[in-house]
Amino acid sequence: MGVRWGNITDVAGIRVGHADHPAGTMGCTVVLAEGGAVAGVDVRGGAPGTRETDALDPLNLVERVHAVLLAGGSAHGLAAADGVAGWLAERGLGFAAGEVTVPVVPAAVIFDLQPGASFHAPGADLGYAACTRAVSGPLPEGRVGAGRGATVGKILGREHSCPGGVGNWAIALPGDGVVAALVVVNALGEVVGPGGDILAGARDPQTGQWLDTLSYWQQHPDAIPWPGNTTLGVVVTDARLNKAQASFIARAAQAGMARSIRPSHTLYDGDTIFVLATGEKDVPPALVAALAAEAMRVAVWRAVLAAGGALDRTGTR
Amino acid sequence: MGVRWGNITDVAGIRVGHADHPAGTMGCTVVLAEGGAVAGVDVRGGAPGTRETDALDPLNLVERVHAVLLAGGSAHGLAAADGVAGWLAERGLGFAAGEVTVPVVPAAVIFDLQPGASFHAPGADLGYAACTRAVSGPLPEGRVGAGRGATVGKILGREHSCPGGVGNWAIALPGDGVVAALVVVNALGEVVGPGGDILAGARDPQTGQWLDTLSYWQQHPDAIPWPGNTTLGVVVTDARLNKAQASFIARAAQAGMARSIRPSHTLYDGDTIFVLATGEKDVPPALVAALAAEAMRVAVWRAVLAAGGALDRTGTR
Repeated sequence: MGVRWGNITDVAGIRVGHADHPAGTMGCTVVLAEGGAVAGVDVRGGAPGTRETDALDPLNLVERVHAVLLAGGSAHGLAAADGVAGWLAERGLGFAAGEVTVPVVPAAVIFDLQPGASFHAPGADLGYAACTRAVSGPLPEGRVGAGRGATVGKILGREHSCPGGVGNWAIALPGDGVVAALVVVNALGEVVGPGGDILAGARDPQTGQWLDTLSYWQQHPDAIPWPGNTTLGVVVTDARLNKAQASFIARAAQAGMARSIRPSHTLYDGDTIFVLATGEKDVPPALVAALAAEAMRVAVWRAVLAAGGALDRTGTR
Repeated sequence: MGVRWGNITDVAGIRVGHADHPAGTMGCTVVLAEGGAVAGVDVRGGAPGTRETDALDPLNLVERVHAVLLAGGSAHGLAAADGVAGWLAERGLGFAAGEVTVPVVPAAVIFDLQPGASFHAPGADLGYAACTRAVSGPLPEGRVGAGRGATVGKILGREHSCPGGVGNWAIALPGDGVVAALVVVNALGEVVGPGGDILAGARDPQTGQWLDTLSYWQQHPDAIPWPGNTTLGVVVTDARLNKAQASFIARAAQAGMARSIRPSHTLYDGDTIFVLATGEKDVPPALVAALAAEAMRVAVWRAVLAAGGALDRTGTR
C-alpha cells in the first residue's frame, strides 16, 4: 500500500480519451468503463452545468453507467455527451431496459468561453472522437481534452489568469486495489501547494507576482469575479461500492479540491465530482473516501504543473 | 378567480412548440419564456433522464432560464436540448456571464423507445424545429410533440397499454394571474378520473377491459414492469416567485400527478416537474403551489382524453 505513481487507467476496466476542438481553445475528456461501473455524483459549486446527474441519485433506478463525459464549452458542451451515447449505443452498452439498451452518460462542463472569440463548443462529434481515442495506459495531462481551455485564478478576469488543465493521480488500496482521481482545473481561485504556497493563480498586473485571491476579494468586495470557472473531477476505484457509497465518496472527494484550491466551490464555480466503481475489491468505503480526497488533491496539483503556468513567477508568459 | 378554460400560453410571455420526429413515433415539446423566467425543478420518479437540473437548485447561481425542453427518445432525446440552446443563442438569450451569454436549457425525457423498431430519437434539429413552431395561442394536445410516442398502463408491457400524450390546463389566480400546467403522460400506471374510475391504462388481454395495475402487481409481484415510462410536467405562472419558491411549487405539483395517476412516481418512472415563473403578480406562493397541483391533475386527464384511448373500453384500438 502507498502512493502509486500511476494514472486512473490503473483501475481495471477504465480507459480515458481526450479530444481537442479544431479551434484549439477547448475540448472534452471521456472516462470509459465499458464493463459498467456503479456511479455516484456530488455537485458542490454554485454554477453547475450537468446532465444525467438525477439518474445517479442513490434512490433511483440506474445502478451502473459506462462512461462519464467532461467538456469545455459551458452549457453548449453538454452536446458532446450525445456522441458518447452514440459510441456506447453502437456497442450495445447502456442501461438494459427490457429489450432496449439506453446509454446513460453523466456529464458536466467547465465554462471556458472567451468573450469576443468566434463561437464554438464541443459537439457530438468531439465526444465520439474522445471515445475512439481512449487509452488504458499513461494519460496526457495539462492543456488537453476538457482542460484545453482551462484557466485558474480569475478574480481579475481571464487575462490575468494562468493555465489550468487535466491532472490525475492514483493511490493504492489494501488488497491490491486502487482509488484514483482525474480532474479538470478551471477554478476561480488559485491552486495552493502542500505548504500553502500558490502554485498557480491570478497575477498582479503590476508586479507579475501571484495575487492572493481572497485578500483581493475582501478588499474589493464589489469586484464581479469572472464567471468562467468550474473544476470537475472523476474518482475511479476497483473497490466494491453500492450506489449510495459511490455518492458518499463523490462528496468526500470534494475535500481534496477544498485543500488544493482557494477559494473552491464558489458561487461562480460549478464544481462537480463523479465516481465510477468498477470492481470487487473489499475495502472499507470510508477509507476509499478519505483516500479519494487525497488523490483529488494531488491530481489538482498535477493539472496545473502539467499545464505549464505553475510556479512561473516571471509573468512573462 | 376560478377555472379558466385555457392553455399554459395564457401566461404572459409563454410560447409552446411541438415537433414530431419524421418517423412518427416520438417528438419533443419546448416551453419558451423568451423574456426569462425564474425556474425550479423537482425530480420524484426513480428513473429520471435530465439535463441542467443542478443549475436550478435554489442554492445555485442561475436565476432565470428561457426555455424548458421535454422529449421522447429516452436518454438519447436529451440531444434535442442542443437545438433549443442553439435557437436561444442565435437570439442572444441565456445566462449573461460577463460578455458571454450561455443558454441554460433544463430538459427531461420520457422513455418511449420500442423494442425491435429501428433506432431514432429527437436530436438537435427537432429541438430547434420545436422552437420555430412555438405559438402563444391554443395548444395541440394528445399524441403530439413529446407525447407523440407516449403510452399509459404498462404493467403488461407496451402492447397492452393505451395512448398517452400531452395535456395542459390553466387556473386563474387572484389579481388576474394564472397558474397552468403542461404534462406529457407516459406513466407505468393508469390515469384515474375524479371518481376514481380508470380513464386510461392497461387492458386485460382476455376481456379488453381496464386492468387495475396495483391489484395485478400485488398478485404478480415478480412481474417486471415495462421500463418505458415517465410523466413530465411544466408549471408556468405569472406570479412573482423566487427560485426556492419555484422549486417548492415544482414539488407541490407532483401531488397533481399523484392524484390522477396510480401508481405514480414509481421506480420505473422518471417523473419530473419544472416551474417557470415569468411575472410580477403578487400571489401567496402557497396558494400558487396548491393550485399548481390542481392544474397538473386536470392536465393529466386532458392528455389521455386528447390522445383518444381514454374511456374506450372496447379493446379494439
